[in-house]
Amino acid sequence: MEIKKFSDFCEQVLPDFNQFLNDRLNSEIKQETLKQAMLYSVNAGGKRVRPMLFLAVAYSSGVKLKDLPKYFDIAGAIELVHTYSLIHDDLPEMDDSDYRRGKLSNHKKFGVGPAVLAGDGLLTQAFYWIAKSSLNTDKRMAAVRILSHNAGPMGMVAGQMTDITMEDKVLSESELTTLHKEKTADLLMAAITMGAFCADHELSKNLVLYAQDVGLAFQLKDDLDDCGDDEDADKNTFPNLIGKKATETKLNELVKEAFNAVLKEDKFDKNLLVSFLDYFKE
Amino acid sequence: MEIKKFSDFCEQVLPDFNQFLNDRLNSEIKQETLKQAMLYSVNAGGKRVRPMLFLAVAYSSGVKLKDLPKYFDIAGAIELVHTYSLIHDDLPEMDDSDYRRGKLSNHKKFGVGPAVLAGDGLLTQAFYWIAKSSLNTDKRMAAVRILSHNAGPMGMVAGQMTDITMEDKVLSESELTTLHKEKTADLLMAAITMGAFCADHELSKNLVLYAQDVGLAFQLKDDLDDCGDDEDADKNTFPNLIGKKATETKLNELVKEAFNAVLKEDKFDKNLLVSFLDYFKE
Repeated sequence: MEIKKFSDFCEQVLPDFNQFLNDRLNSEIKQETLKQAMLYSVNAGGKRVRPMLFLAVAYSSGVKLKDLPKYFDIAGAIELVHTYSLIHDDLPEMDDSDYRRGKLSNHKKFGVGPAVLAGDGLLTQAFYWIAKSSLNTDKRMAAVRILSHNAGPMGMVAGQMTDITMEDKVLSESELTTLHKEKTADLLMAAITMGAFCADHELSKNLVLYAQDVGLAFQLKDDLDDCGDDEDADKNTFPNLIGKKATETKLNELVKEAFNAVLKEDKFDKNLLVSFLDYFKE
Repeated sequence: MEIKKFSDFCEQVLPDFNQFLNDRLNSEIKQETLKQAMLYSVNAGGKRVRPMLFLAVAYSSGVKLKDLPKYFDIAGAIELVHTYSLIHDDLPEMDDSDYRRGKLSNHKKFGVGPAVLAGDGLLTQAFYWIAKSSLNTDKRMAAVRILSHNAGPMGMVAGQMTDITMEDKVLSESELTTLHKEKTADLLMAAITMGAFCADHELSKNLVLYAQDVGLAFQLKDDLDDCGDDEDADKNTFPNLIGKKATETKLNELVKEAFNAVLKEDKFDKNLLVSFLDYFKE
């Protein structure tokens, strides 16, 4: 593999991928308000971690750099689903966030009704992009299955429901792990497993373990980064439940386990996925 | 074909289909609040017109009555998408409806946050059901493509956005036709064209014309049924725009055109689709 560092990979791929997202939505969506609202959140400064992980897995499985654009519609579908989930999460009756990454949240900019619809539009269009991909039908079908399973009421949506209905209740460590798995880890896991499927890489136990660890680590890092934030003092998070120190230990263990899992992988270039783990050391 | 009347067809098929919807959601959805909220609206008294049209097209294309259950997951996907759209439409910042078919709307029963999530869950699960169907991959892929195209931001979601953002503006007849096509007709058209694809019936111009006419007729009948309802006095509807009489004429023309289109169809049993048109004469 030419590229060994995840950050270098993103630097190479992101400009074209961002262009793709914008061109595609601009050409497909005719309803002006809907287009603006969808594009606003797609371009709200996300790091594109999920689609980049998907593409990195494909690349590490042997897809050439020049062939990666063939995978952009499926990578894009993952980013559309992630973006929809943020818009709906920010709504007044959910997390009630007026800002996201320093910009007005979608419903503050466009109103609650349009924000609900922008989310609905992004979620549905994700499946349209998969359907229109040039990959063969079996790969596209696997992508539809994995994405809908992990992002829907058996995954992310279930986690979000637990989150908003259990706000006033202190969860046990195992309940909290389930919540994080569903709400955050499942979509990251989908990105990684979809990458393997789309690149004909046989999905191994090690890659699944890596995906699970990375998914949960993601939520722990997020909660640690927000530590000390008064708003989060009552939230169901690991720092609030077991303390900051114990959460850091847990995070390090997950990253180590992910590292060991990917090292055992032998039909696969390990560099990018190992390098991605630096994300958790920042 | 054994069954010639659409109402007889529904009587034969609906009990098993309703059982299927409930069994499937009950077994798949583990998050209790989410399951209750999704099932509440799925069982809120809908007539299942869209999935029954889908199954009727499959049946009219030669699928035997005993084989129809193989098509239930795709029929179910259509009903899940329809149900999600009603839940989100009823939200306070959309149509703000406290009741639907005499029962509390989903957000009145469960709260706005859970209702948004119930809708998100139904929409995503629809694609999971298609992915898990036992039909071959090409048929499943066509179903994903048609459903996401017609129900998403290039179809139903676009129509809904126009509806809520243009509430205070009087639309022209052509703008209103576009709105109705997107908001109502596109999902009905999806049901009919998906039925043809799934049953290996070559999609003809006549069937597409039938689907378009039925889709628009559906909205006109709905608006005529609501005529005299004070709440609707300011809404963008054909009765408000061109008058009740002219709307009735337009509806009759559409039904006649749909009838003529289906009569020209020759690789296809016409009975059920002709009989379905009785719906507009009630």
